[in-house]
Amino acid sequence: MKAEIISVGTELLMGQILDTNARFIAQRLAEAGVDHYYSSTVGDNEQRLFDTVKRAAERSDIVIITGGLGPTGDDITKETAARVAGKRLVLDEESLSAMKERFERVIHRPMSENNAKQAMMPEGCIILKNNNGTAPGCIIETDGCAIVLMPGPPKEMEPMFDESVMPYLARRSGRTLYTRELRVFGIGESTVDAMLADMMQAQTNPTIAPYALSGEMKLRVTAKCADKAEGERLVKPIADEITSRLGDAVYSTDGLELYEVCAGLMRENGATLAVAESCTGGMIASMLINVPGSSEWFLEGAVTYSNEAKASRLGVKHETLEKYGAVSGETAREMAEGIRKTACSDIGLATTGIAGPGGGTPEKPVGLVYIAAASDKGTVVERLDLGGSRERIRRSAALSALMLLKKTLDAE
Amino acid sequence: MKAEIISVGTELLMGQILDTNARFIAQRLAEAGVDHYYSSTVGDNEQRLFDTVKRAAERSDIVIITGGLGPTGDDITKETAARVAGKRLVLDEESLSAMKERFERVIHRPMSENNAKQAMMPEGCIILKNNNGTAPGCIIETDGCAIVLMPGPPKEMEPMFDESVMPYLARRSGRTLYTRELRVFGIGESTVDAMLADMMQAQTNPTIAPYALSGEMKLRVTAKCADKAEGERLVKPIADEITSRLGDAVYSTDGLELYEVCAGLMRENGATLAVAESCTGGMIASMLINVPGSSEWFLEGAVTYSNEAKASRLGVKHETLEKYGAVSGETAREMAEGIRKTACSDIGLATTGIAGPGGGTPEKPVGLVYIAAASDKGTVVERLDLGGSRERIRRSAALSALMLLKKTLDAE
Repeated sequence: MKAEIISVGTELLMGQILDTNARFIAQRLAEAGVDHYYSSTVGDNEQRLFDTVKRAAERSDIVIITGGLGPTGDDITKETAARVAGKRLVLDEESLSAMKERFERVIHRPMSENNAKQAMMPEGCIILKNNNGTAPGCIIETDGCAIVLMPGPPKEMEPMFDESVMPYLARRSGRTLYTRELRVFGIGESTVDAMLADMMQAQTNPTIAPYALSGEMKLRVTAKCADKAEGERLVKPIADEITSRLGDAVYSTDGLELYEVCAGLMRENGATLAVAESCTGGMIASMLINVPGSSEWFLEGAVTYSNEAKASRLGVKHETLEKYGAVSGETAREMAEGIRKTACSDIGLATTGIAGPGGGTPEKPVGLVYIAAASDKGTVVERLDLGGSRERIRRSAALSALMLLKKTLDAE
Repeated sequence: MKAEIISVGTELLMGQILDTNARFIAQRLAEAGVDHYYSSTVGDNEQRLFDTVKRAAERSDIVIITGGLGPTGDDITKETAARVAGKRLVLDEESLSAMKERFERVIHRPMSENNAKQAMMPEGCIILKNNNGTAPGCIIETDGCAIVLMPGPPKEMEPMFDESVMPYLARRSGRTLYTRELRVFGIGESTVDAMLADMMQAQTNPTIAPYALSGEMKLRVTAKCADKAEGERLVKPIADEITSRLGDAVYSTDGLELYEVCAGLMRENGATLAVAESCTGGMIASMLINVPGSSEWFLEGAVTYSNEAKASRLGVKHETLEKYGAVSGETAREMAEGIRKTACSDIGLATTGIAGPGGGTPEKPVGLVYIAAASDKGTVVERLDLGGSRERIRRSAALSALMLLKKTLDAE
C-alpha cells in the first residue's frame, strides 16, 4: 500500500509556519508499515491544488491531505478533492448539529453563517469526527484510491489521525498495530541510540522508533499483530528491556507527560505540594495545574523572582542571599523549605538559576540552575548545567525539578 | 518568477527528521518577492527523483533542491538533476582542491576516494562554495529554468543560500517584498473574515493573509515593491484601515507576542507588576518572565489555587470567599488589590475561574473566569465566558488578563 501526503496552505509556502503535520503523518505511516514515496506542499489555489491531488490519486493508494478545511473563502481543499473524486458536496446534518453544539457548549458564541460551509461533505464519504475543533475530516473512497482530508491545526489533526485514520489504515492493510510510547528525560539522543543499538539493529516486529523532543525523548514500540492482546504480548518484553537499560530516565511507559506522572503520584500518595519558582517563573505551577483536579493537592505557588520576594515570601535568610547569592544550592534549599513551611505542604519544590541571555558571569554562567525538594525525609538539592535558549533552559529546569519531585514521591 | 522547492531524502519520508530547509527557503523566497507555488519531498530513488525534478523544471523558473549531495552511493541528486538538464558531470579541479584542503585543515584526516565524487559537477554550472562542509552546491542553467542544488544539513545550506543564492535571485527578479504582521486577540476568525471581507476581496497589492493561532489571529499584509520605503508606503494605509476596523483587538502591528507588548509597556512606563493567579496557575508569570530583563519590573507572582492561600497570601476576606465564592468578581478584585499591596507594586493583576473539565455548576459553569487589574487609578474587573479544553480556557484567560494589563498601561 502506497501513501502520499499533501500539506495545503499558502502560509506554508510563505514559510510562515513550519509543517509538522507531514512529519507526524510520515512517522505514523512508517509505524503502520505503509510505503511513503512523496509528500508535497501546495497553496490555497484551486488549479494547482487540483493538479496536485489528481496526480497523487493516480499514483498512490492513499492520499492524506491536511489544511484548508476552515470556514473562509480561502479554504478550498474539500471542494477541490471532491472534484478530483467526481463527488458533489452535500450537507451532513450530523456534522452541522455537532458544530452548532460545539459553538454553544464550548465556544459560547453563535455560529456564524460561514461555519455552515464546514458541514458540507463529499457525498458518500466516511466522516471523521473532530473532537478538538469545528471542521470535521473525511475519507473519500474512489476506484483505487482513498483521499483522507483533515484540518490543518496539529491539535485537531493529530488526535483525529490516531483515533480514526490509523484504524482505517489497519483495516485496509488487514492488520492491527499496537504501540506503547516510552518517555525519557535526562539522557541525550546519541547516548540512548548507543545503549539500544543492538535492539534497534535486530528489530523486525515490534519496531523501535526513537524521536527527540525539546530536551526529552520518546521511544515508540510498535507491533504488527492480530489483536490488542497479541500486541501487548509482543511489546511488553521490548518495553521492559528498554526500561531496564535506561533505568530511572524512563518516566512513563504509557506516553504520559512528566507533569501527568507527577500528578498521578501526588494523588496516589495523598501528598500536598507547594512550589517556589525563580528562573522557571510559574512554568512548573502552570504545567501541574493543567492536570484536572490538581486543586486537591497543589496548595500554592510562589514566583519569587526578586531577592526581596525570596526573603519576605519564603523566609530565605538575607545572609544566605549575600554570602552564596540568589543562584546557589543554599538558596534553593531555603526556598524549598520555606515554601513547604509557609504553605504547610508535605513537599516543597524550588528552582533558582540564570536563564539568560544576560546575567551570566564566569563563576555563575547562563544555564546554571539549582533545584531542591523538601519533605519530611529532608531536603535534596541538585545542581544543573543547562544549555540552549532562555526558553530551553527554563523548560529543562522545570522538567528536572519535576523529575526530582517524582524521585521524592517514588521514595515515599 | 516562479520557484519550487524539492527536499531529497528517505529519512524525511520516514519522519525521522523534520524538514526545516523548506521553510527557511520559503521565507527567503517570500522576502525576495519570488512566487512559490509548490514544494515537495522525495526519497533517494532515481526514477521518482528524476520525475519530480523534471516536472518541476517544466513548470517553474527556479527549482531549489536540497539534500543528496553526500559522498555515498545513496546520494544521487547531482547525477539526476544533471540528467534532467542534459548535462554531463565533469571534475571541478577548484572544488576538489578546496575539499582536500578542508580535510587537512578542519577534518584532520585524509580525504577518502568517495569524497572525490563530490567534486564532479554538471558542466557549465555556477559553483556555490560550501564554507561549512565538503559538498559544494551549484546552479545549472537550462533553457527557461535554473536548478539550484544545495547540501541537506541546515548548517551548510543556510549560509550557502544567503551568501550565494539570494544575490542570484535578486539579480534575476529585480524586486522585493515587504510584510507587516498584525496580531489580534478577542475576535474569532470568521468574524474577522466578515469584518474585512471587502478588503480581502479587493486585494491585489498589498495582499492580506489571515492565520488562526491558538485563540489568537495574525494578519499578514504583504506588498510587492521596489524597496522597503515603497513597501512601507503601500502597507501602511491597509494596516491602518484594519486597525481602525478591529479596534483594540489589534494588540501589535509589528508581529510581537502579547506578553512582549506588555513587557515593552511596563518598561516604558517604569511601572512594576505583581500577579496573583488561580485558574491560570503560573501561566501569566511564565509568559512575562520569558522576556529577557523582566526581573526589572516583574516583582512577584503568587499561584493561589486554594481558598487558604487566597486569604493568607493575598488578604482576600473570608466573608468574600463565603458570600461570593472563590470564582467571583469580588474575589478577583481583592486578589488584585491584595497582591498589589503585599508586593508593593504599581499594578496588581489577578485571575480566578473554573478551567474544567470538572467543578462547573449551572450558576458557575466551566469557562467562567474573572480577571482584575488594580492600580492607583482604581481596580477594573472583567467577567469572561470562555470555551474549549482546560488548556484552552487557561490560555484564553491568561491572554485576556494580559489584554487588561495592556489597557491599564495604555491609560497611564
